[in-house]
Amino acid sequence: MRQEDGFARRAGALLRAAANDLKRDDENAERDLGLEHGTFGPHTDGSRPVDWDLVRRAAQVWPLNERDLLPVHDDCPLGVAVTREKESLASSRVLSRAGAPYYEYRDTAMSRIASYRPEWIRMLRTVDDDDADNPLVQWNRGHLLYQFTYFVGPVNYYYRWNGASHCVPMNTGDSVWALPFGPHSFAARSDAEPAYILALTYGGALLGDAQRELAVLGRQTAHELAVPVAGEARDTAALISSFLAARAMPAAELAARTGLSRRRTEELVAGSAAPDAAELVLLADGLGTSVRDLMPPRTGTADGVSVQHAESARSWEVPGEGAAAYRITGLAGDPLHPHTSALQVDVLLGDVQRAAPLSTYQHQYLFVLGDDPVLLRWEFRGERFDETLRPGDSAYVRPGVPIVFAAAEGGRPRVLLLRIAGAVTPEIRHALGTMAPGGIDRYVAEDRLWYSKEGN
Amino acid sequence: MRQEDGFARRAGALLRAAANDLKRDDENAERDLGLEHGTFGPHTDGSRPVDWDLVRRAAQVWPLNERDLLPVHDDCPLGVAVTREKESLASSRVLSRAGAPYYEYRDTAMSRIASYRPEWIRMLRTVDDDDADNPLVQWNRGHLLYQFTYFVGPVNYYYRWNGASHCVPMNTGDSVWALPFGPHSFAARSDAEPAYILALTYGGALLGDAQRELAVLGRQTAHELAVPVAGEARDTAALISSFLAARAMPAAELAARTGLSRRRTEELVAGSAAPDAAELVLLADGLGTSVRDLMPPRTGTADGVSVQHAESARSWEVPGEGAAAYRITGLAGDPLHPHTSALQVDVLLGDVQRAAPLSTYQHQYLFVLGDDPVLLRWEFRGERFDETLRPGDSAYVRPGVPIVFAAAEGGRPRVLLLRIAGAVTPEIRHALGTMAPGGIDRYVAEDRLWYSKEGN
Repeated sequence: MRQEDGFARRAGALLRAAANDLKRDDENAERDLGLEHGTFGPHTDGSRPVDWDLVRRAAQVWPLNERDLLPVHDDCPLGVAVTREKESLASSRVLSRAGAPYYEYRDTAMSRIASYRPEWIRMLRTVDDDDADNPLVQWNRGHLLYQFTYFVGPVNYYYRWNGASHCVPMNTGDSVWALPFGPHSFAARSDAEPAYILALTYGGALLGDAQRELAVLGRQTAHELAVPVAGEARDTAALISSFLAARAMPAAELAARTGLSRRRTEELVAGSAAPDAAELVLLADGLGTSVRDLMPPRTGTADGVSVQHAESARSWEVPGEGAAAYRITGLAGDPLHPHTSALQVDVLLGDVQRAAPLSTYQHQYLFVLGDDPVLLRWEFRGERFDETLRPGDSAYVRPGVPIVFAAAEGGRPRVLLLRIAGAVTPEIRHALGTMAPGGIDRYVAEDRLWYSKEGN
Repeated sequence: MRQEDGFARRAGALLRAAANDLKRDDENAERDLGLEHGTFGPHTDGSRPVDWDLVRRAAQVWPLNERDLLPVHDDCPLGVAVTREKESLASSRVLSRAGAPYYEYRDTAMSRIASYRPEWIRMLRTVDDDDADNPLVQWNRGHLLYQFTYFVGPVNYYYRWNGASHCVPMNTGDSVWALPFGPHSFAARSDAEPAYILALTYGGALLGDAQRELAVLGRQTAHELAVPVAGEARDTAALISSFLAARAMPAAELAARTGLSRRRTEELVAGSAAPDAAELVLLADGLGTSVRDLMPPRTGTADGVSVQHAESARSWEVPGEGAAAYRITGLAGDPLHPHTSALQVDVLLGDVQRAAPLSTYQHQYLFVLGDDPVLLRWEFRGERFDETLRPGDSAYVRPGVPIVFAAAEGGRPRVLLLRIAGAVTPEIRHALGTMAPGGIDRYVAEDRLWYSKEGN
């Protein structure tokens, strides 16, 4: 494994944590893993490497997987990682469909810390209508990743859902958020002006552990685990039924616990009615959940997509009207992904001292639109950094890093921001908020045996 | 890597999915990875192995991590994996504190599919009082894993939270659920009778991707990401503020979107008041979330633990009173972990044909308590299996596998069940419920390029 960036230290902490979880002290671990006496400690504090052989051996003798002992790489050690337009250009590749060039792809900023796969894509196919069935349009099969798309120039967006095909003519500033695996396509309506998109795909929680687990559980179980989001009483009923199964609890016991009648309880479980706010509280008490656990999410998508045209997009000034550093425009998104924000930022000030820092718990991706370069200032671990980003440049920003934009050479720079959640879900954030004192530090990097050999 | 159990096929599917995400077709992938022409396809369909060298190379040239390409092992190919008491005995080890034997540990059933680390632990230290400060008691430093504990015999439970130490005398059937990193201990109150616990630790969502990400983001960011669960208005305010930051939205814009007054909006953001049900709906609309996203979870823990004594535990019959196969008793748990269920199952019938199947979306762990052996019947992928489990035997059961218990040799067998969530969270279950047709199958095992080279 590559040993840059604290990787070795993080691998050591994972090994210690795994041994703790299995209640193995150093001697037990050395015996299990066939290590020489006195070497386990150094493996866990990063002074001896955790190499692939050791990982493989641990996954054989202990009930864990190789990946459980592998950390991730930190390829963004300064808080922000910039990809210049010329690097994107170097990744340019043309993908053909049916033997003819259809798209030019260029990679933009990505990081091993986040699930972004953002591409700049130019349409090489031109059409002269808005017909969803135009035979010049070559469709894909859809893909796993969620896709936020920002449009520049006259681009048609094609999408298909449940067999019905749609075409929406888009222009600069329009955007769309789309669910996984829906077939889609793009084509230019003119070859006289630029026509491209920023196809900002990301996997979010769908990648990683959940996919690994479902790959083992199999397709049938995955289908059984699916819960509907139909905006109907059966959404809530599916959650209630799921908890009843989890508790091995018949509806009669739930009725006894909640004080609801047997008939009403059965209606709610069957989905022929939805609980009101007071009933939700009773049900959550009866099932030992929080009320939120019984509330389904909502979606604004239609046929798998949520379109936001520029002309109807809301915009506002930050930090406030009259003293604004930025004009923010809200782009396409959906309540199904509440932790995704797509924002267009118009930079109003040239004085970086007067501009306002933007900070969020999310991962951030940015791409410089328009014609004007922008100064990006950020602070990370006590240091301040400045970079001038030119149109076509892009960057990844770690969660919690405050960033400031200012016009670098006058004009009014425009930046596209796509912010997404990582693996630190609200559930994890609440778990962090309820850990015993000192727990967070050890959770992030376990550095000790779970007990003292010497005693209290 | 070991190639049992479909691991190679799953690794291939991950490689295909990673290339799709990066918009690399076979030729691009071969060029990037230095593979011979025509070999990428066979690597992705499992006919050529995805070995460590290939994984490492991909993690160098593509913006991903080694672990992103590694699946998990299926060590439970029959749906249930049984660990016999004698296997547990073979893992017996005595852990000393301050040079004197303190606990005997024995491993029980574990699986590479689930985050359980369940131990049978015998107390080797005997005390004659309930004094939390008894110097004979040796405390640990706390550990990362959540711990559900089931008590057998006269056992004192010691726990410490914010510097205050507590002792609760426990007896058979009592149980406790405890938050991570709280120091704790156990001691017997008598050496004349058995005194042991089932210490069913599990990591749940805290392990895996979230821990990997926070290890890179670091301690300061982890502290900043923590959200309180205090049962107060500031819990909700923390969620609202978090979303405002995510949207780069000042309170004035939220007020304009919701129709709430500027003053009321600022109260809700500051946490000096909590929103009522109608305001929650307005706020969720204004922020582009679901109502659930603005509702904090609740907890019933006090000083980090939730104790359930046997005498006050609710019990009920399943499938219904009068025609019951089981009497179920609800054990310790907490709304913070709504997807954990701890149940004591008393098996009432001897005829397996008449007994009722229990099925859940959760992972299940079971341990045979008491003196009577139990017949365990389950169905998996069209096959039926029967195993007789004796006291001290334990087992892991995959999600979605229906199980039936019956008395194997008369008597009234008693089984402890601990059910937990895996990585398939409600968010994932809702995502499965909103994927385009055919999406679930491809999500579980991607088997194709994201487009057809031949065109439509």
